[in-house]
Amino acid sequence: MAAGDIPFRPPLPVSGVRIGTASAGIKRTDRKDLVLFELAPGSACAAVFTRNAFCAAPVIVAREHLRQQSPRYLLVNSGNANAGTGDQGLADALETCRIVARHAGEAETSVLPFSTGVIGQPLPVDKFVSAIPLAFASLDANSWADAARAIMTTDTLPKAVSETLDIGGRTVTVSGIAKGAGMIRPDMATMLAYVATDAAVESATLQGMLTAAVHRSFNRISVDGDTSTNDACVLMATGRAGNDAIKDSSSADGRALQAAIGRVCGLLAEAIVRDGEGATKFIRIRVESGASEEECAAVGYTIAHSPLVKTAFFASDANWGRILAAIGRAGIPALDISAITIDLNGVRIVERGGRAPGYTEEAGQAAMQSTDINVVVGLARGNATAEVWTCDFSFDYVRINAEYRT
Amino acid sequence: MAAGDIPFRPPLPVSGVRIGTASAGIKRTDRKDLVLFELAPGSACAAVFTRNAFCAAPVIVAREHLRQQSPRYLLVNSGNANAGTGDQGLADALETCRIVARHAGEAETSVLPFSTGVIGQPLPVDKFVSAIPLAFASLDANSWADAARAIMTTDTLPKAVSETLDIGGRTVTVSGIAKGAGMIRPDMATMLAYVATDAAVESATLQGMLTAAVHRSFNRISVDGDTSTNDACVLMATGRAGNDAIKDSSSADGRALQAAIGRVCGLLAEAIVRDGEGATKFIRIRVESGASEEECAAVGYTIAHSPLVKTAFFASDANWGRILAAIGRAGIPALDISAITIDLNGVRIVERGGRAPGYTEEAGQAAMQSTDINVVVGLARGNATAEVWTCDFSFDYVRINAEYRT
Repeated sequence: MAAGDIPFRPPLPVSGVRIGTASAGIKRTDRKDLVLFELAPGSACAAVFTRNAFCAAPVIVAREHLRQQSPRYLLVNSGNANAGTGDQGLADALETCRIVARHAGEAETSVLPFSTGVIGQPLPVDKFVSAIPLAFASLDANSWADAARAIMTTDTLPKAVSETLDIGGRTVTVSGIAKGAGMIRPDMATMLAYVATDAAVESATLQGMLTAAVHRSFNRISVDGDTSTNDACVLMATGRAGNDAIKDSSSADGRALQAAIGRVCGLLAEAIVRDGEGATKFIRIRVESGASEEECAAVGYTIAHSPLVKTAFFASDANWGRILAAIGRAGIPALDISAITIDLNGVRIVERGGRAPGYTEEAGQAAMQSTDINVVVGLARGNATAEVWTCDFSFDYVRINAEYRT
Repeated sequence: MAAGDIPFRPPLPVSGVRIGTASAGIKRTDRKDLVLFELAPGSACAAVFTRNAFCAAPVIVAREHLRQQSPRYLLVNSGNANAGTGDQGLADALETCRIVARHAGEAETSVLPFSTGVIGQPLPVDKFVSAIPLAFASLDANSWADAARAIMTTDTLPKAVSETLDIGGRTVTVSGIAKGAGMIRPDMATMLAYVATDAAVESATLQGMLTAAVHRSFNRISVDGDTSTNDACVLMATGRAGNDAIKDSSSADGRALQAAIGRVCGLLAEAIVRDGEGATKFIRIRVESGASEEECAAVGYTIAHSPLVKTAFFASDANWGRILAAIGRAGIPALDISAITIDLNGVRIVERGGRAPGYTEEAGQAAMQSTDINVVVGLARGNATAEVWTCDFSFDYVRINAEYRT
């Protein structure tokens, strides 16, 4: 199940992007598990990757290939993360790029590899040999929904979003897909997310737009506090919409496109949290009036990572004492606890270091019945704000992770 | 249930310490919930408290009273934490000290108050008025076991340890009790622990001994990563054993007593983890060959706090990929992942950035069947070491915390 609705509409095709899918049988044989993105020549591509020191072999290869040239192909597999696989893992990731490159008649550096699934098992390269030609054969502009399903692991639902906007009289599309339900506390990017637009954008500007969008979306969510070894988020721009290439993200066109990319990333990030392992509630923690965005985020994450807070939300218990204890251990210097306020879906529950005078258990319990919970913490130290989105901690979280091997 | 045996032997009495208990009916009426320690005149007393900014009212009062004089009485209640209670909470904590002081004919600053239980509810001071005289009436040197039970909250078993040693021809006793099963990630001291000795020790030396013992025991355990608002650990020395007062902890007598106090704190800390909420396994994480003790502890805590690692241990799954991912996100600068080794109950599972060549799933699964798991991580960066003790994450953890209100 998931916390609230994750509406799935097949995303709009993006001119200049074709997608192929295939069943390679990497972990299971009854589903598609391979995705091939093909970008039109001249497309720009920006990416951000995990900061986990144990980053996976495909992350290392993708980062290096991206440094060398603008990619033509993205190869994604689910079912095996090719992480913790040492030198053999690097050789295997490179070999999958070579298979794609040979088939396309391009250099191997034109291919970026991505993997998600079990950590620590060798990548079955032989299964790619037969599946990659099938993925090429199925290349089609309308396969976004198939791709969203093929990259799933413990996700219960595919995640996809589209936006359209007008740039210089041209209709521009931004479409994105993402996956991820566990090992989600991205540090730079989420598990896997692919966003494409047909707008023309200069390469450096595109990277800046992705970084800005990720900072307030994928980098502000947490399911379990565990940063994956395989996180990657890619933003592709094919230029096929025919607009004058955007060079400045602060121009009117730049701001409009940035806003659309931000909304697509935000909705995909929200969908990941709503589909978090075992999630029954979606919790938006907004920390206001801090001295810096960093300290607001630190307080937000301490609340979001507290198993005691998360189990209280699962029980629909307005247990503000646990929120208060989490704020107190967030490591904020010279925190004035008597100035802190906590509101829960509009109900003031804490002020002056204790329970708010007007608060009643009935009002708190009523607020907690909602699937969507807004926690607002006021620090009364400055003008900075940060939001962290998370989900609750349920029996199903334990069941899923005691049974599934990441 | 608890992870492994927590043998309970009624602790040995400590000359100069008497203990009274009573049923005040603070949360439940069918159990003892009030403990009064009485220290002989001339006793020394050292204490460490939580570093949570939202520390409870009794912590604030105890710290201030301890600053003013050496205490004669410690008053402990379970069932209500008197935390998040603002100015009223401070007034209530002071009032309970006054009731004890009037009864004893001492100054109110001679009493240290301690509370544990639900956060955010007013302390029912009226219930103390009738119960404190009962606690005085029951003062006895042999009530350590009663006290260990009276301070329990979600603990399933009482925790108590005694040691004896010889100092200058005199037999010296060290006895201690502790409580705590959830909201356990002490930062300076654990939930509540009381250790007493009849050795004569100078006050400053005693504080140094407590700090050293806590650093390697209560400050190295974690059940859920949540630092309580009420943590406190007290070390009392009555001097009744008749030894020459210990002034130097590096003397032969000082080292012997330090070692005994260290063992008592270590065993109590281990008992808290074994009785951690929902615990089925006791996990000792030893991080070796780090550049500093701090970075070893950071790696240890990142592993210990990972819900993915903890649920894998619950499933008895040798899921080393999750341990590796946790090490990778611990924030250690310039970590050489190819040099890291991981051993699990003596089985080498990771080396050279991936699965150890000789490792088999069978060997890993066999090692995981044990209730006690030793994880040894080698960082190959220096000579520092740190240990962190934790437990697994089970269905019962979620059940307990979705039902119980801390």
